[in-house]
Amino acid sequence: MKLGFIGLGKMGANMVENLLDHEHEVVVYDLSQEAVAKLTGKGAHPADSLEDMAAQLVRPRVFWLMVPSGKPVDATLGSLLSVLETGDIVIDGGNSNYHDTLRRSGELSEKEIHFIDVGTSGGLEGARSGACMMVGGNRDVFGLLMPVFEDLCVPGGYGYMGESGAGHFAKMVHNGVEYGMMQAIGEGFDILENSEFPFDHHEVARVWTNGSVIRGWLMDLVARAFERDGELSYLSGEIADSGEGRWTIETALEQRVSIPVIANALFRRYRSRSQENFSDKVVAALRHEFGGHGFTAKSK
Amino acid sequence: MKLGFIGLGKMGANMVENLLDHEHEVVVYDLSQEAVAKLTGKGAHPADSLEDMAAQLVRPRVFWLMVPSGKPVDATLGSLLSVLETGDIVIDGGNSNYHDTLRRSGELSEKEIHFIDVGTSGGLEGARSGACMMVGGNRDVFGLLMPVFEDLCVPGGYGYMGESGAGHFAKMVHNGVEYGMMQAIGEGFDILENSEFPFDHHEVARVWTNGSVIRGWLMDLVARAFERDGELSYLSGEIADSGEGRWTIETALEQRVSIPVIANALFRRYRSRSQENFSDKVVAALRHEFGGHGFTAKSK
Repeated sequence: MKLGFIGLGKMGANMVENLLDHEHEVVVYDLSQEAVAKLTGKGAHPADSLEDMAAQLVRPRVFWLMVPSGKPVDATLGSLLSVLETGDIVIDGGNSNYHDTLRRSGELSEKEIHFIDVGTSGGLEGARSGACMMVGGNRDVFGLLMPVFEDLCVPGGYGYMGESGAGHFAKMVHNGVEYGMMQAIGEGFDILENSEFPFDHHEVARVWTNGSVIRGWLMDLVARAFERDGELSYLSGEIADSGEGRWTIETALEQRVSIPVIANALFRRYRSRSQENFSDKVVAALRHEFGGHGFTAKSK
Repeated sequence: MKLGFIGLGKMGANMVENLLDHEHEVVVYDLSQEAVAKLTGKGAHPADSLEDMAAQLVRPRVFWLMVPSGKPVDATLGSLLSVLETGDIVIDGGNSNYHDTLRRSGELSEKEIHFIDVGTSGGLEGARSGACMMVGGNRDVFGLLMPVFEDLCVPGGYGYMGESGAGHFAKMVHNGVEYGMMQAIGEGFDILENSEFPFDHHEVARVWTNGSVIRGWLMDLVARAFERDGELSYLSGEIADSGEGRWTIETALEQRVSIPVIANALFRRYRSRSQENFSDKVVAALRHEFGGHGFTAKSK
């Protein structure tokens, strides 16, 4: 299939390489000339502009967006709008909030342009050699795009989740589950680290990757990290978050659904980023006020 | 290797079958004559008693216990004591609390009997065709037993965790992590279930098993369950627990280590088993007392 690919960051570039491996014709565009040149060297067709990209594609034209969620998606869609025609297909493969997807899908459908949301999982390795994709939007358009999903994903690694927004919704929940699973793994190794036994974390993780109930890719990755450094001494333990855990909890709040594990996993990330925490100070102050309990004075 | 196997429940019987497949000579004993007869039919040697078993083995004799944790292990060890001799090896492959293991190991070492603790993971399927084993105890004895672990486990699926107790400690933490991961998965599907999209849970789980970050055996199992019934309407949602999650949290409390996700996963299991909960009643009563807020009256 011939398609346009907009956004050649780490994920996007790997996906384009995977598409080229599978002999798709890919027209590429990015704000970075270097990123375009790199993929042109590997067989992609460069586009100078979105107009140029549109001119190189055949109707119905397929534009795959792989840009950061939020404003970059809206900005790209804004620029794309002038070249889009009835029947064209726009795919957002990034981590967009599903509320944004619903809005964008509505706006584009007024112009009879198909908007397909794809939640992409599997990390950089997955992008390069086989990812997992949760697809939302019109089912017939999904069917049309199947050859692309078939080649971008591991066998069985894609599926139709439902109407517009369902793909990004499923990806949001996937990431919420991921937060909880990662925190559970982290807590387990914390207990091993603080135990009376001098555990070799790499050996424990390695054994757990083979045949245990908790085996899976996250365990493979933690084994890999411990192989490099059994005490992870090269990093600080501050954990960033990119929004999807928060959206998962916001969604659960709207639904009045109780998700203590996913919520706590996110809250631990917030706590991980502060050296000191105001709620901790308030509690320590209260202990001092009512019971005269000592506290750790702030060093100057 | 020739070894005695005591306890032919679902896990034990599957492990004996796996040992027989790998041409080990297995002498089996269980309180159930039927369980003994069934495995005798598959090539195991029956033992009428622990004395009979001991007489059929060669020194150093290896006794593998696969009985429920707690009193059954102590009772079996008590009976076994009269037949054990210096240099014999006793393996506890069950889910024993590591404190018990430390005590038992100490008692047996006074008689110069080796006690090896094996945390076994991988469920019934793993027991039958390749498990994961976390081994604690004397390292030389571990080395002696390696041919057995090699055959009972998937490739790379066993490892030496440390001195006595380390195997069961690692298994305890494994199960704590399992509780957290399972609860995270449960919460994710709860959000999908309550969303505006009519998700097909089996399709979501199936896609997540292939190439996603959260792929792994637990996701395979949830996909299998949803394949059978996408709404899991055949079960109630009461979740039992067999102790290891609780021990994990008790250990973290001793260590003063914060494990909100594993703790919440266990607490959700407790809550899952009560139709009504006293803390919920207290909170509802307080809302009524201070604000005149309504409450749901108890039906008679």
